[in-house]
Amino acid sequence: MPKATPVTRNDVAQYAGVSSAVVSYVVNEGPRPVAPETRQRVLEAIRVLGYRPNATARALRMGTTRTFGLITPDGGNPLFAELAKAIDKAASARGYVVLQTGADGDPATERSKVAELVARQVSGLVLVAPTEDPDLTEIDIPVIAINRVLSTVSSVRPQYRAGARSGVEHLIGHGHRRIGLVVGGGGRRPERELGWRDALRQAGLEDGPIARTTFSRHGGYDAGRRLLAATNRPTAILASSDLQAVGVLRAIHEAGLRVPDDIAIVSFDGTAETEYTWPPLTVVRQPLERMAQHAVAHLIDGPTAVAAKTFPAELILRRSCGC
Amino acid sequence: MPKATPVTRNDVAQYAGVSSAVVSYVVNEGPRPVAPETRQRVLEAIRVLGYRPNATARALRMGTTRTFGLITPDGGNPLFAELAKAIDKAASARGYVVLQTGADGDPATERSKVAELVARQVSGLVLVAPTEDPDLTEIDIPVIAINRVLSTVSSVRPQYRAGARSGVEHLIGHGHRRIGLVVGGGGRRPERELGWRDALRQAGLEDGPIARTTFSRHGGYDAGRRLLAATNRPTAILASSDLQAVGVLRAIHEAGLRVPDDIAIVSFDGTAETEYTWPPLTVVRQPLERMAQHAVAHLIDGPTAVAAKTFPAELILRRSCGC
Repeated sequence: MPKATPVTRNDVAQYAGVSSAVVSYVVNEGPRPVAPETRQRVLEAIRVLGYRPNATARALRMGTTRTFGLITPDGGNPLFAELAKAIDKAASARGYVVLQTGADGDPATERSKVAELVARQVSGLVLVAPTEDPDLTEIDIPVIAINRVLSTVSSVRPQYRAGARSGVEHLIGHGHRRIGLVVGGGGRRPERELGWRDALRQAGLEDGPIARTTFSRHGGYDAGRRLLAATNRPTAILASSDLQAVGVLRAIHEAGLRVPDDIAIVSFDGTAETEYTWPPLTVVRQPLERMAQHAVAHLIDGPTAVAAKTFPAELILRRSCGC
Repeated sequence: MPKATPVTRNDVAQYAGVSSAVVSYVVNEGPRPVAPETRQRVLEAIRVLGYRPNATARALRMGTTRTFGLITPDGGNPLFAELAKAIDKAASARGYVVLQTGADGDPATERSKVAELVARQVSGLVLVAPTEDPDLTEIDIPVIAINRVLSTVSSVRPQYRAGARSGVEHLIGHGHRRIGLVVGGGGRRPERELGWRDALRQAGLEDGPIARTTFSRHGGYDAGRRLLAATNRPTAILASSDLQAVGVLRAIHEAGLRVPDDIAIVSFDGTAETEYTWPPLTVVRQPLERMAQHAVAHLIDGPTAVAAKTFPAELILRRSCGC
């Protein structure tokens, strides 16, 4: 279904017998006044020809489109859907529209999606958990990364380390002495692992077993099975993401063990799903709303200096920890 | 951080001492040849001035942007995130980019998002579960709705009725005679309810209790509690969405009952979450990939006649039904 060439302002001008500038004054309600009769003629021409004043072209003239591009790594993680929603809400409150597109955690796709959005003249870019620094020679609009620290652009993320620590301290408070860790993130700096260790060290406890895996339900399931089979089976587990915690829960249920009686769990993220797992998960919640508001404010107001901003994560007590 | 006026093709032309058309020939590699020396001069000017050939402007000239706008009702339902991913994949395979924006199930927001995307010259629109028919006097590009039948634009949806029926037939096959229904959708035609009833009638069974609620985890939880408190408590339940089924599961667990031993469940949707609930949910899976491919093909290839296309939903057996 190929589309015909759009009706232009010049077409309208010709039909109405006025200059193209006059059409613009009518469409934009200024900056110069237009005589009522002329205005009527232009409006009639717009109606007859089906002219659609083009927001993009208008924005190009004004130098901004009041639109942010948002690139998320994966449609499969509800955390990113909730974050996108928070960004949309924060942007909306400042009069901006958010256009989202996925990059699936692949650097080449990420680069091409950045180029697509930049070419479409968005006025700012939000990169959620990008795999690498964007090529700033290609981008002359503000950019901010969420949940990943980059070297060339500003970022915002939860206080992963302090948050993980608070979760483990809570488990220690319940009397646990052998606390395992399910952690994702591959080669990246494992802040959540550091927080887990901080809490154990502070309490004079030895490190529990660690299961490294992907940020997915299946990864958590696999990791959970490994921890359950370990000779030093933990009595409590910190999962570095909700998806992993959900997988760990399944592994524990399949083994015929009970949560929290046999094994307690604290998860990191706090997505909606965790309120309805069985049992409901105690979580360290990412401050999605505050991060989203900060990201939007950064794109609109600056500053331009590269900064890595963090917000505290909040411990939300439900049943999986033993509360 | 207001953005300076973008560098234009005219700026490049002036700097390089060529006509604006020549700049276009260089940028678009045609349609006319450019002498190598001139080409070098233009490329140098592009580099020095930081000119960014504008995909939108180029697309406007060509009459298409090879971009689809996608409007989803809510970031909170993983079904829509999975559907968005399927649409992105199908569009990608045809060389299109998808820009997604949310409308939160609100008609006014939906209308304004449609206008935003249309003004940005997308070449087609996908409306997921729209609340109303779009105003086609404002839209001269192809539109398709998913999961909702409209009167003025084509749509694609699962075979809700046959799918629900197959889920209930499966429960009847397990020996259940009192099968309840948790159903959402308010005033809309409840195809899933019809399918539930078809199966019961066919087997000569009376209708089980119905709990009407919202399409949410909390709605399902509420509905589940109502069904558990009913005098004719069902031994099996069909939930009209995964979110509802997850809520029903929590209500059953809290009541100290077992799934599937005390109450069996079949859910409708088949999102990733259902593979990791406890127990894993037997689901009637929406054919997301086929619906997405159909929607994309419709936008690209036509036809223009309004049609409501359906694809069969697939029963996926896990544990919650008793298998």
